[in-house]
Amino acid sequence: MRLLNVFYPGEERFAAMFPPPLLDELRSLVDYRAIPKPSPGQTSDPEYLAELYEAEILLTGWGTPMLPADLAQRGKLRYICHVTGGVRGVIPRELFEQGVLVTNWGSSISRTIAEASLMMILACLRRVRPIQEELHNRGGYRRGVPWPHSLFERRVGLLGFGAIARELVHLLKPFNVTIKAYDPYVPEDFFAALGVERVEQVRTLFETCDIISLHAARTEETTGIVNKEMLRLLPDDGVLVNTARAALINEDDLVEELRAGRLWVALDVYEKEPLPADSPFRGLERLLLFPHQAGPTIDRYVDMGRMAVDNIRRYLANEPVLAQVTVEKYDIMT
Amino acid sequence: MRLLNVFYPGEERFAAMFPPPLLDELRSLVDYRAIPKPSPGQTSDPEYLAELYEAEILLTGWGTPMLPADLAQRGKLRYICHVTGGVRGVIPRELFEQGVLVTNWGSSISRTIAEASLMMILACLRRVRPIQEELHNRGGYRRGVPWPHSLFERRVGLLGFGAIARELVHLLKPFNVTIKAYDPYVPEDFFAALGVERVEQVRTLFETCDIISLHAARTEETTGIVNKEMLRLLPDDGVLVNTARAALINEDDLVEELRAGRLWVALDVYEKEPLPADSPFRGLERLLLFPHQAGPTIDRYVDMGRMAVDNIRRYLANEPVLAQVTVEKYDIMT
Repeated sequence: MRLLNVFYPGEERFAAMFPPPLLDELRSLVDYRAIPKPSPGQTSDPEYLAELYEAEILLTGWGTPMLPADLAQRGKLRYICHVTGGVRGVIPRELFEQGVLVTNWGSSISRTIAEASLMMILACLRRVRPIQEELHNRGGYRRGVPWPHSLFERRVGLLGFGAIARELVHLLKPFNVTIKAYDPYVPEDFFAALGVERVEQVRTLFETCDIISLHAARTEETTGIVNKEMLRLLPDDGVLVNTARAALINEDDLVEELRAGRLWVALDVYEKEPLPADSPFRGLERLLLFPHQAGPTIDRYVDMGRMAVDNIRRYLANEPVLAQVTVEKYDIMT
Repeated sequence: MRLLNVFYPGEERFAAMFPPPLLDELRSLVDYRAIPKPSPGQTSDPEYLAELYEAEILLTGWGTPMLPADLAQRGKLRYICHVTGGVRGVIPRELFEQGVLVTNWGSSISRTIAEASLMMILACLRRVRPIQEELHNRGGYRRGVPWPHSLFERRVGLLGFGAIARELVHLLKPFNVTIKAYDPYVPEDFFAALGVERVEQVRTLFETCDIISLHAARTEETTGIVNKEMLRLLPDDGVLVNTARAALINEDDLVEELRAGRLWVALDVYEKEPLPADSPFRGLERLLLFPHQAGPTIDRYVDMGRMAVDNIRRYLANEPVLAQVTVEKYDIMT
């Protein structure tokens, strides 16, 4: 069966996802073919289209140009194995209607993002930001450095309870924390199975927790949900961590709250990326900044490659694939 | 039974260790008496000594002046409940010979130090130090910031396998790491029970692990054990974390290795504390510095108070106390 690789994450990243033994495994499963990335003007070239129409399986992901909407109608396409996450800039909705199967990285990368969230929580509690300034840049030791605090026995609130939040629960367990979560779209038993208390209102998290970690998708309901009012509900020295979507936070309100010097915050995502040079976030001593790299980390890119190859094997064996992107999921993807 | 409080950690710290309900509990158990801290010249005053000689239990710890060597012989002393760790500057060896029971904080604070070690490991792997410099102090985003890495599936080596290292194993477990440990003084079954591979040589840890965390006591054998030769055995981008004793590391060798820009390191302890203003450690981009505050954090000081009150209750009920400091332990304490 012909698989065409039109996935262009760059050479270093591709090699991290598909190291030689894994690429060999893929080649042993299919009639593997890779073509150079077409320039924007080349995506309607007949030779390029002919390659696409010949393939039954496409390997897609970061860097794949938008696919033609008639690939299954006119061509042989049956299955798109999308190695990375978001598919809306790559796969036209029509292909779902033509019965094409689509999968993506699913939860294979969730644990690395959960890990980043835990790291950011601990780094906030341990006052890493002012401590590095004091020791590295001001030549001091403990002058004016606030007490570090522990995660043990604290109250953690998860805004959103999808795959990443649930992975985070596993990492939090040894700290004997109390965990509450808000997510109206996740079934009741997911909460109970992990010993997490479900709350009915976002507000409850901010009223009753010391630490808030954001894991919700961007929707109309969640846009700007972390605003002045919510932030004020957090206790002094409360912690807020965002590895999810920038839109969840009202950034102006957060800057104001951070300037008041009451909370500790770590951010991986911003309304505008890369973060503008004159962003008011820069220089704030209670804020850790990260450049949207929570996950997957390059040493775990292989998990995405493994997931893709496993799915291709399943597809060929007529077994159910993992992490299918249904048209319903597609329609709410950000 | 008369308990005399001669423990002087400062008001804020004492209140964090013995919040009102816990202090009330202590008062309900014994005839509690507290006296102001004697100045260095007052420790031989008859009134101060009379107070000491009247007590059957002493509450001691940070700030307690060295006790008289004849407290049990001439006075009523039976039990010293030392709330904090090291006792050698407080308790003369003679008191052990006179049959006085001594306890300290035992492992009640181990978990917070283990937590600091985990935080430091994650912060090294996630490149927190250069990322904060880039985003906060250089106005950039990802320019020249090395790839962050994950802890999942990595090989971790623990140099020393006492209470803190064993607590760290619990925090590491969800990351599916492989753990090896070196400690000739810890029984075999402690390793097996936690799924940790025991190694016979320190060298093996450095040869076979990506991440080394130090948890050994300072002894003749361990002084300077992390030297140029060991550091060179670590792989590129290897991680070294020290929340234990500064003496374990040859600091000159470490500075040289850090300047070569190959490893990621986090330190909480230094040969000279507070860290001198002109320390060559300051400013290094692959090094996280912390001011000897790994643990216990102030929000967990209450664990030390709880441990002390529980031990006093046990002592009064003729039950075995926890964390007894035997004369053998006393002799090897640092």
